[in-house]
Amino acid sequence: MTDPIAARAALASDLAQRAGHIALDYYRRRDSLEIETKTGALDLVSIADRAVEDMIRAEIAAAFPDDAILGEEGGAMAGRSGLTWVIDPIDGTVPFLMGLPHWCVVIALIEGTETHLGVIDVPMAGEHFAARAGRGVTLDGKRLTLDPTRAITQGLVAVGASNRSEPEPIVGIIQGLMQAGGMFYRNGSGANMLANVAAGRLAAYVEPAMNPWDSLAGLLMIREAGGVTFAYPADATLGLTLGAAPGVWDDLLAIVTRQYPEGLPQPQR
Amino acid sequence: MTDPIAARAALASDLAQRAGHIALDYYRRRDSLEIETKTGALDLVSIADRAVEDMIRAEIAAAFPDDAILGEEGGAMAGRSGLTWVIDPIDGTVPFLMGLPHWCVVIALIEGTETHLGVIDVPMAGEHFAARAGRGVTLDGKRLTLDPTRAITQGLVAVGASNRSEPEPIVGIIQGLMQAGGMFYRNGSGANMLANVAAGRLAAYVEPAMNPWDSLAGLLMIREAGGVTFAYPADATLGLTLGAAPGVWDDLLAIVTRQYPEGLPQPQR
Repeated sequence: MTDPIAARAALASDLAQRAGHIALDYYRRRDSLEIETKTGALDLVSIADRAVEDMIRAEIAAAFPDDAILGEEGGAMAGRSGLTWVIDPIDGTVPFLMGLPHWCVVIALIEGTETHLGVIDVPMAGEHFAARAGRGVTLDGKRLTLDPTRAITQGLVAVGASNRSEPEPIVGIIQGLMQAGGMFYRNGSGANMLANVAAGRLAAYVEPAMNPWDSLAGLLMIREAGGVTFAYPADATLGLTLGAAPGVWDDLLAIVTRQYPEGLPQPQR
Repeated sequence: MTDPIAARAALASDLAQRAGHIALDYYRRRDSLEIETKTGALDLVSIADRAVEDMIRAEIAAAFPDDAILGEEGGAMAGRSGLTWVIDPIDGTVPFLMGLPHWCVVIALIEGTETHLGVIDVPMAGEHFAARAGRGVTLDGKRLTLDPTRAITQGLVAVGASNRSEPEPIVGIIQGLMQAGGMFYRNGSGANMLANVAAGRLAAYVEPAMNPWDSLAGLLMIREAGGVTFAYPADATLGLTLGAAPGVWDDLLAIVTRQYPEGLPQPQR
């Protein structure tokens, strides 16, 4: 019998790469794209975002009509298989619109609270990340494994933020990080930064309120590379997100804990 | 009679591109490079940094033996022409060592407090920025001009930080920025971020304590693109650095002023 996850893994990688090509074409013509404001000047959604998501949705519906789909732009479509595709057609819309190269295409496949697959394609870097639960994570086909000796002082900790969250916890985390001898990073694409944690280029990622389509794929990648993450809340669409190299986790968790005295999600490895 | 600045402009661009190729070769072999700690785990200097600076110094000394040279790695060499080359062989050493693509080669030519030339080469992006005072700034030969209507809420404001500065003003600026509806960015290379302000990809750049070799080239680029910067202090090696698109300047200056009640440098256009 065919492995249902393996069949979807191949489609996920194929779709993310095709979506990346479409988005890249729009990116190079973005000055002429009509831009529509969604919830403020920093939360723009472009025609490209919709076009990419529509393509991905149509291909999934054709290949696996019983699967559910949840996308940033098009909302939720119910299914019968128990499997849900979670799509961010272009993560990092602000970088995309401003001409910064960090934006990416994100596809995850989940079943309840379990993330089976995560794929992140970064067209401007020519990089393709793919993870499957229990079977590791690759960058352009090469297995990624985090250095267990990396400390919080030996790399950059990415801090995500959006107009969904208050400044205070973000500012508190940056202050705690610098006081601990660490340093912050932010490139405007949460999924890009999570993938770069899995690749060992960033020491960790933290964001107060992240959506599942931005976060689930990258969090799986970090765990599959040997890192630690918060479990994503099963009952929430916005979650406090943390993922780190194993030697960075404890120190960063202590910094984050001071901003959330009411308690934190469970760690997941 | 030959224009003394024009002759040096050609050399600056040529050297930065050749330096970029050398650095890129080291970057791709960095896992095997011997790494030496300078002032802490986040302030590493690599063999590549020295090799690139040595090449640039030797070429300048051969072409313009009367010019002075100030470099991040090799210190200052006096001259008799009144002109000083200011070199950062690899700005963004942490990104370079971690595998993030933002690092760049930076060369400026100054005379007293005036910056005549600024060149920034970003090998991983394949991008070359070049500015000459009074004659504009180009990216890969194409003239850059900032959009005068861009507001602080319509882009990302880069915030530089290092272990040279205390967390408090940085944290205060990030908080003020988010309260004003803006958003922060940091990729670990100050010169890269300054160049991206000149390119209109970032709305502004601010850093509490920046060295001349990181900052002078990029600040000239911002002014030549139509932006505003602080004048760099003539008597200091570390300076509070601010550069912004013209429509962003006033709002960002108000945020920065709250962190520096004792007064700020003069603006320069």
